[in-house]
Amino acid sequence: MKPTKELLAGILDEVRPLIGQGKVADYIPALAGISATKLGIAVCYNDGEIIQAGDTQERFSIQSISKVMSLTLAMSLYEPEEIWRRVGKEPSGHAFNSMIQLELENGIPRNPFINAGALVVSDLLHSRLAAPQYRMLELVRKLSCNPHLTYDKAVAASEMQHSDRNASIAYLMRSFGNFENEVMPVLTNYFSYCSLNMSCIDLARTFSYLANKGLPLGAKKTIISQTQSKQMNALLATCGLYDGAGEFAYRVGMPGKSGVGGGIVAIVPGEMSITVWSPELDPSGNSLAGTAALELLAERIGRSIF
Amino acid sequence: MKPTKELLAGILDEVRPLIGQGKVADYIPALAGISATKLGIAVCYNDGEIIQAGDTQERFSIQSISKVMSLTLAMSLYEPEEIWRRVGKEPSGHAFNSMIQLELENGIPRNPFINAGALVVSDLLHSRLAAPQYRMLELVRKLSCNPHLTYDKAVAASEMQHSDRNASIAYLMRSFGNFENEVMPVLTNYFSYCSLNMSCIDLARTFSYLANKGLPLGAKKTIISQTQSKQMNALLATCGLYDGAGEFAYRVGMPGKSGVGGGIVAIVPGEMSITVWSPELDPSGNSLAGTAALELLAERIGRSIF
Amino acid sequence: MKPTKELLAGILDEVRPLIGQGKVADYIPALAGISATKLGIAVCYNDGEIIQAGDTQERFSIQSISKVMSLTLAMSLYEPEEIWRRVGKEPSGHAFNSMIQLELENGIPRNPFINAGALVVSDLLHSRLAAPQYRMLELVRKLSCNPHLTYDKAVAASEMQHSDRNASIAYLMRSFGNFENEVMPVLTNYFSYCSLNMSCIDLARTFSYLANKGLPLGAKKTIISQTQSKQMNALLATCGLYDGAGEFAYRVGMPGKSGVGGGIVAIVPGEMSITVWSPELDPSGNSLAGTAALELLAERIGRSIF
Amino acid sequence: MKPTKELLAGILDEVRPLIGQGKVADYIPALAGISATKLGIAVCYNDGEIIQAGDTQERFSIQSISKVMSLTLAMSLYEPEEIWRRVGKEPSGHAFNSMIQLELENGIPRNPFINAGALVVSDLLHSRLAAPQYRMLELVRKLSCNPHLTYDKAVAASEMQHSDRNASIAYLMRSFGNFENEVMPVLTNYFSYCSLNMSCIDLARTFSYLANKGLPLGAKKTIISQTQSKQMNALLATCGLYDGAGEFAYRVGMPGKSGVGGGIVAIVPGEMSITVWSPELDPSGNSLAGTAALELLAERIGRSIF
Repeated sequence: MKPTKELLAGILDEVRPLIGQGKVADYIPALAGISATKLGIAVCYNDGEIIQAGDTQERFSIQSISKVMSLTLAMSLYEPEEIWRRVGKEPSGHAFNSMIQLELENGIPRNPFINAGALVVSDLLHSRLAAPQYRMLELVRKLSCNPHLTYDKAVAASEMQHSDRNASIAYLMRSFGNFENEVMPVLTNYFSYCSLNMSCIDLARTFSYLANKGLPLGAKKTIISQTQSKQMNALLATCGLYDGAGEFAYRVGMPGKSGVGGGIVAIVPGEMSITVWSPELDPSGNSLAGTAALELLAERIGRSIF
Repeated sequence: MKPTKELLAGILDEVRPLIGQGKVADYIPALAGISATKLGIAVCYNDGEIIQAGDTQERFSIQSISKVMSLTLAMSLYEPEEIWRRVGKEPSGHAFNSMIQLELENGIPRNPFINAGALVVSDLLHSRLAAPQYRMLELVRKLSCNPHLTYDKAVAASEMQHSDRNASIAYLMRSFGNFENEVMPVLTNYFSYCSLNMSCIDLARTFSYLANKGLPLGAKKTIISQTQSKQMNALLATCGLYDGAGEFAYRVGMPGKSGVGGGIVAIVPGEMSITVWSPELDPSGNSLAGTAALELLAERIGRSIF
Repeated sequence: MKPTKELLAGILDEVRPLIGQGKVADYIPALAGISATKLGIAVCYNDGEIIQAGDTQERFSIQSISKVMSLTLAMSLYEPEEIWRRVGKEPSGHAFNSMIQLELENGIPRNPFINAGALVVSDLLHSRLAAPQYRMLELVRKLSCNPHLTYDKAVAASEMQHSDRNASIAYLMRSFGNFENEVMPVLTNYFSYCSLNMSCIDLARTFSYLANKGLPLGAKKTIISQTQSKQMNALLATCGLYDGAGEFAYRVGMPGKSGVGGGIVAIVPGEMSITVWSPELDPSGNSLAGTAALELLAERIGRSIF
Repeated sequence: MKPTKELLAGILDEVRPLIGQGKVADYIPALAGISATKLGIAVCYNDGEIIQAGDTQERFSIQSISKVMSLTLAMSLYEPEEIWRRVGKEPSGHAFNSMIQLELENGIPRNPFINAGALVVSDLLHSRLAAPQYRMLELVRKLSCNPHLTYDKAVAASEMQHSDRNASIAYLMRSFGNFENEVMPVLTNYFSYCSLNMSCIDLARTFSYLANKGLPLGAKKTIISQTQSKQMNALLATCGLYDGAGEFAYRVGMPGKSGVGGGIVAIVPGEMSITVWSPELDPSGNSLAGTAALELLAERIGRSIF
């Protein structure tokens, strides 16, 4: 069954009481300042129809959701084996920024959605593109059908000021020969990608290609192949929600990706892409009310990949 | 598209050259003695139709595939929270018998499909059932529509002689208060479940309920609810293939569960359950040619949850 | 300078205010019941002279101090390489009962004074002695010049009831081939050794051989060679105080061994053996006031190996 | 008994056959180029008398031995608690450059002689000294009575080119708030200290203060107090030889510090400081023939702290 605006609004009402039980990310001031009561949900059908409720036009910091975009761009530039010999495809079983596994596994990150893996992907982009920041922005503007999207320079600068842990991760990989470029320029790009401000509607549109066999909204040509699109969804299903992927699959049953800005995108392959936004996070770092909203939506519309 | 016997036979021909590249499990003599050239695939449609090719009637040791059955039995006996406060739902990121995470996480296993988790499930069955071995056998005979299935006492006894690691795992959980019964009787039951000999056809029929919203083949009543069936598939998708779940999702795109006997079951929700058998394992402990056969099948019939 | 009874009594007065800042071991009732205000110190000169103050005649549970005796007995029975291929000589850097390192290092414990290492030593004794409990008791009675010492059966039985963690450690080593006998009988012996009740004076006399080149008090023959005596002191200095060996060396500057019963023995090679007793432990599991008393004693009499 | 030149030469003859069983450090070209057959031993009595044999006047890269000097300088500049709240005093039980423990223990290194700990000490010097490189050189020239000592700029530059792992360690500590300065300038200083070229005789003279209660050779005033000198020896005994401190204590029985250039310094408190040099290392990173020479010397002259 197709969700109506009323159904979406009802779901938001049901999950709103959860606000107060999570915790807004506060490791940089720019994120800490967001209002915890923001709440929105947008569904983008493969034909482009948008159904939405709540704060779906206000832009927020997409943070780790950008990891899907940078991997998509890398997949369009590299042969698969060039990527997958440098980063794995397995869930990590550790916190998103843990270095323990990375040391034990010789600098090969477990998957492209933990920090280490996303830094390798950024390093790949840096090696092959003259202007990776420009190309990423171009890609996201095209996918979202929104030419006004920009990086948030204040957020990126603030992240860079708190980048010691990520620098440590990058240098560790470099010591194992799994990082090709100078660390600081790659970090700068990485944080720019994370700093993108996008609305629920922007994001739902952007990720339509993963619900539509690689074909972006309004495009004539796939950005990645149908097979790659399935592979990306597989990676999202097993690794997309930090150390909460199993719980998300159990409760929601869709491939998804979260960011510490409180956004989550989820995919119903062949049908729709969905974005929720609620800034408070659960202990795994995923939007608490957002996950609950997706769980209700999956149940109400009878959609699950399982 | 629906697979024909010819398509299945063709897939087996394609993957047969892989035999020789894996390694038959040899930690107990009973498994080491199996012929490495065995190869079979069986598909069971939700209406009961079986399509198969190769060695699909010969029984083999199902080993860890039994972990799905014991969890199913536990789910039918316990409230969800009684189970999930004692075992997690997340991929482990470690080898199936690693104890490191178990110590760091206070004796709560990551998921029910690593050894520690399956031992907790066996402990749960032991606490509530007077004759857990009998009940398991009864369940599997019913699900498989095969009243002749039996435990392989020689295999179970051999496993028990090599049970030090599992005993260590159980005692560690007991030291954290997450194991209720005496260790040795629970281990005895656990190895009996693992020792079940079943054919590809037996297994494909047995797991039909996970493709059919909890309804076993030929049954009038679900064995677990539709929601529980989805949850089980979610757990299989994220945790069912040891430390190779991400790769399996990436290549095959179906929930699945493997055993060191070389069997793998996979589910296409709403449509069919599939079993492959080839004894040689890849480094993650999953059937090497079996995974390849499932990958080809998924591609040929255009089925994937992603 | 030689300590007088007054000097020792003065030291006890100085450290007595620390009582209340530590925590009596409470994992078994027999230990938890001890009075936290017990406090004693005894020095045994190599000529047999005893100088003491406080509760030095009351027996307490020696617990891990027994690990030195069992290693001494093993050193008298085995060639060095038979012991040291099964247990290391390095500090562990982990808690006394951690299994993480043991798994990563293939079942070879770091040293003979963590639980895993002491269990290997007990396994060695079990393999070579018909009646290891009897032989240990005989040894300790001889070393202490006290024929009345006995195992505390209630304490040993209570430990055995809380032995899951140690059973887990033993089974893990067994799975790596580093444990030869049945686990439970070895554990039974191990806990008997730990259950010995001895007074400060008993202990100071017992360890005189480590201050006297292997020669026990009143004996004509060394129990271990002079070289082995030095080696034992070296092991005590680097590994004898759980994860607090560095701090103990820094503050006290003597080889030593502690037990969770609150006893600590320390050695001034060539001169004297010392025992302190105060049941409250610091976070590393070493007697809090006892360590402070040894620190003061070392300073007052100007003794340190450094 | 006092060693003669002949005794020392005899020891070198005995250990020379071991050359070929170890491995010269090769992670930077400057170290890899050294002749593996270099072999020397020098003893400096507290009265300044030098007894020596072999290649004792040729300078080699002292590498990690510099960690004792930088800690000594820090101890002369800071209150103890200012140092010890930022770095521990316990053996690590891990390789010298492991980051696992550092992450689990919130960026506080286990001790000042693993890389992480020495970087914290360098950070401390950087915070308080205007010209830490100058002050270190001044200190070492004074201690060694050799005004010609200099940093080896080529070695320091080469280390800096291979500094990714140390940069990773420093950034990780910085992310935990345990690193105050910019990473790269501190690394530059750290590698300069390591690059010092000194002979066996230089080093034996330099470390005389640790054998003489803090009083350097020819000095009127202690550089650190007698208590601090004991504490330093205690740290060396438990943590001075990477992950081989226990074995070194067991075999040699003296506080010591090794460097990957193949040098080892050892202390007989109250009597003498000793330096050996042989470039080939054992698996723990300590000079293989050098350790053997110290073991023989300890035995022949009957000296051991145990």
